[in-house]
Amino acid sequence: MKTDNTSNAPMIEIDPQMVERYIMDLAAFGSDGGTGVSRTVYSSEWVDATAAYEAWCTEAGLEARRDAVGNIWGRLEGSEGGKSIVSGSHIDSQTPGGRYDGALGALSGLIALRVLREQFGTPKRTLECIAFCEEESSRFPSANFWGSRAITGNITPKDTETVIGFDGVPIGDAMRAVGLDPAKIPEAERDDIDAFIELHIEQGPILEHADLPVAVVTGITGIRHYEITLTGTQNHAGAFPMDLRRDPMAGFAEMATGLIDTANRWGRPAVTTVGRVNVVPNATAIIPDSVTFTLDTRHPDPERCAELHATQERLMREVAERRGLGIEFRVMIDHAACPSAPDLVTALDRAAKGQQVPVMHMASGAGHDSQQMAKITPIVMLFIRSKDGRSHTPDEFSSISDIVDGIRVLAAAMYDLAYV
Amino acid sequence: MKTDNTSNAPMIEIDPQMVERYIMDLAAFGSDGGTGVSRTVYSSEWVDATAAYEAWCTEAGLEARRDAVGNIWGRLEGSEGGKSIVSGSHIDSQTPGGRYDGALGALSGLIALRVLREQFGTPKRTLECIAFCEEESSRFPSANFWGSRAITGNITPKDTETVIGFDGVPIGDAMRAVGLDPAKIPEAERDDIDAFIELHIEQGPILEHADLPVAVVTGITGIRHYEITLTGTQNHAGAFPMDLRRDPMAGFAEMATGLIDTANRWGRPAVTTVGRVNVVPNATAIIPDSVTFTLDTRHPDPERCAELHATQERLMREVAERRGLGIEFRVMIDHAACPSAPDLVTALDRAAKGQQVPVMHMASGAGHDSQQMAKITPIVMLFIRSKDGRSHTPDEFSSISDIVDGIRVLAAAMYDLAYV
Repeated sequence: MKTDNTSNAPMIEIDPQMVERYIMDLAAFGSDGGTGVSRTVYSSEWVDATAAYEAWCTEAGLEARRDAVGNIWGRLEGSEGGKSIVSGSHIDSQTPGGRYDGALGALSGLIALRVLREQFGTPKRTLECIAFCEEESSRFPSANFWGSRAITGNITPKDTETVIGFDGVPIGDAMRAVGLDPAKIPEAERDDIDAFIELHIEQGPILEHADLPVAVVTGITGIRHYEITLTGTQNHAGAFPMDLRRDPMAGFAEMATGLIDTANRWGRPAVTTVGRVNVVPNATAIIPDSVTFTLDTRHPDPERCAELHATQERLMREVAERRGLGIEFRVMIDHAACPSAPDLVTALDRAAKGQQVPVMHMASGAGHDSQQMAKITPIVMLFIRSKDGRSHTPDEFSSISDIVDGIRVLAAAMYDLAYV
Repeated sequence: MKTDNTSNAPMIEIDPQMVERYIMDLAAFGSDGGTGVSRTVYSSEWVDATAAYEAWCTEAGLEARRDAVGNIWGRLEGSEGGKSIVSGSHIDSQTPGGRYDGALGALSGLIALRVLREQFGTPKRTLECIAFCEEESSRFPSANFWGSRAITGNITPKDTETVIGFDGVPIGDAMRAVGLDPAKIPEAERDDIDAFIELHIEQGPILEHADLPVAVVTGITGIRHYEITLTGTQNHAGAFPMDLRRDPMAGFAEMATGLIDTANRWGRPAVTTVGRVNVVPNATAIIPDSVTFTLDTRHPDPERCAELHATQERLMREVAERRGLGIEFRVMIDHAACPSAPDLVTALDRAAKGQQVPVMHMASGAGHDSQQMAKITPIVMLFIRSKDGRSHTPDEFSSISDIVDGIRVLAAAMYDLAYV
C-alpha cells in the first residue's frame, strides 16, 4: 500500500444495468409479493440463492466455494499471496424483508471483484467476496450471526442442537437437510483475513436528511437490551386514593420519559427505545400489579456507552425507590461497541475522494456481521442511503445511482489495498 | 319523621355471632378455596344463595319474594303504608371474590329489619331489604347492574339477547335456566321507593388510614373510561436518530405521567388510572407503530369531573400535536357522578351520633347499585372499613366489630325514618 494521502485508483466504471440485474435476479429467490423477499437460512429459496451467487462468482472469474456452514466465498488470488481483503454481507432476509438488506453487500463484494478483475487484472494481494449464510435471526431467533460466527470460531458444538427455529427444527438438522455436516463447522474458521469491508443499506434516515449517497461507518454501536420489571400493589382504580398508591404504571411512565429524554439530551449518536411493554393484569379499572418493559439503549463509543447505561440505571433505581416500587433488571443482550479500524476508515475516505463520491461519517446504530468479523480482522463499513430510512420491510429502497457510487468507493478502496 | 337534630333511635343491640353466622353461611354458596367466593348470577351457587336469603327473610318475619329478574326482597309492612324505605346490595361475586363485597350489604338490610322488628315491632312506614341478583359483571361483562336496572326500568327487551356471558350464553337463556321468564322483566319495576340505603365494604384504605369503622358516603364518583390510540412511525431502534423519530411510546409515557400527575395535584377525591397498554408490534428493537392505552378517570363532583376530563383531554392533544403523533379517543364508559341525598346523609350522621359510632364522610370511588337506584329514589351509602383496602379478592376482610357498628347505624337511621 502506498503511504501518501490520496487514492491511487483510477475512476472505476460500473454498469448500472448490471448492478440492477444482479439485485433483481437475487431478489427473485424468495420473492414475496411485489418488492418483498422472504429468504431464511437453509430454506429452499436460500439454497437457490446461494447456488446462484456461487455460479455468478465462477462466471466472474473467481474461485467459488461453499464453506462448512454454507457461506459462499469468491476468491481472486493475488500474485503476492498473503492474507485476504474481504467484502460482503448476508444473503438471508427478514420474512418478509426487501431486496437490499444484506443482499446488496453480498452482491457489491462480487461486483467489485468482477469489475476490478475485468478492468485491472490480477491483484497483488488476494481479494475475496462473501455471502454470509445468516444474519437476520429470522428463522432461528438465537442464531446470532451464524455465518460470521462460524468464520470466527464462535460456534460451540451444542449450538447446533440448542439453536431452535420458529418451526421447532434445531439448526443442525436444518444444515443436514441442505447437505451440510454440523460436525464440520470448525472447518469454516478463517485466520488469514487482513481487512473486512461490509457495504450495507443505512436502515436510517441520516444520509437522506444530509442529501448524501454514501457514508463511511466509523464504528458499530454498543447495544444493551434490558428487561425491567416494576412491581407495585394491585388495587381498585376507583377506591384507592392517589396518595396511597404504589402504581407501577406511574413509575414506568416516569422512567420511560426520563430514559428516552436522556438519549434526546445526549443527541446523536445515542439512541434509546422502549419497544415492549407488558402489564399485569392489564385491565382498565385496576391499578396494575406489575409492568415489564424493555430498554434498548445504544452508543458507538465504548466509554460513553457505559456512561449512558449507568445514567439510565441510576434513573430507574431512583424512580423505583422514591415510588416504593420493586424493580428487577435483566440484561438480555449486551454487545460491546465496535469501532472501525482507523486505517480502513481513512482508506474509504481517500477512495471516495478519488471517485468524487461525497461521503459523511456516521456510526452504525444496528448490529452487523462486521462486529463478529472484528474478532479476527480490522473492519469497516459503507452505508448506502435508504429511502425514508426504511429497512426490514418490502418498502426498503436504495437507488441504483447511490448503490453504484457505493460500489465504486468499495472497489477503489480494494484497488488501493490490493493493486498498488 | 321528627324534625329536631338528633336521632330518636334507642341504642340498637346486634348479636355479633348472628352477623358472623349469616356471613359465613352465605359465603358457603360458591365457596372457592379458603376465604374465596365465586358466585355468578344465575349459576347453581347463586340459586342456592338466593333461596337461602329468601328463607332467612321469611324466618325473620318478613314477607319474602323473588322478583322477575331474581332479586330477592324481604318486606316489613308499615302500619301507615306509603312508599318503602329499602336497604340492600348485590348477592353475586367476582370469580373469585371474597365474603363481603355485595353480600354484606344484602345481609345488613336483612339483619337491620330482623333486629328492628324483634326489638320495636311493626314500623309506621314500610321497610324492605333486597339482595340484588347481579352487579359485578363477572359472568356477563355488559350486564351493567342487571338487578337494579330491572327495578328502575332500564332493561330493554333486546338486552336479554345481546348481553352475552363469557360462556357464550345470552342472559335471557341463563334466566330461563333458573326458571325466570325474560318477558316478565318489566314486572320487576318499582315506583314506590322513597329511600335506598346501601351498606358496602369501602374497597379502599381511607377508613383504615383514618382509624374509623364506618363512613357516610356523600356521593358516587363519576367514571369515564377512555381508550386512546397513539400512532407514530415504526422504525429500527438503532438506525433512527432520536431527533427524527415519531415515537408513540415516548408520547404515551409523557401523557401517562401528566394524566396521573393531574390527579395527584388535584388530590382526593380525584383519581386517574392507566391500567391497560397494548403496543404494536411490541418488540424490543423496534420503535413502535402504535400504543393503545386506557384512561380511567373519576371525580364525585359533576362539575369538577367535567373539568378533570377537559384538562386531561387538553394534555393529551397537546402532547400528540407537539410530537406529531396521531391520536384517537374512544369513550368506553361514561357514568355521571351521583351525589347522595343530603337528607339521607344527615339521617345517617344523626344515627351514627346516636349510636356513638364515629364516622367520616367520603365519596365512593367505585360504582354501585345505588347509582341505578338514584334514578327512582333518593340514595345514600354506608362504607365499612376494608383491611388493607382490598376487594375483588378472597383476601378482602372487614371485622365483625366494624360490621356491627355499620349495621347499628343503618338500623338506627331506618328507625328514625320508619318508626318515629
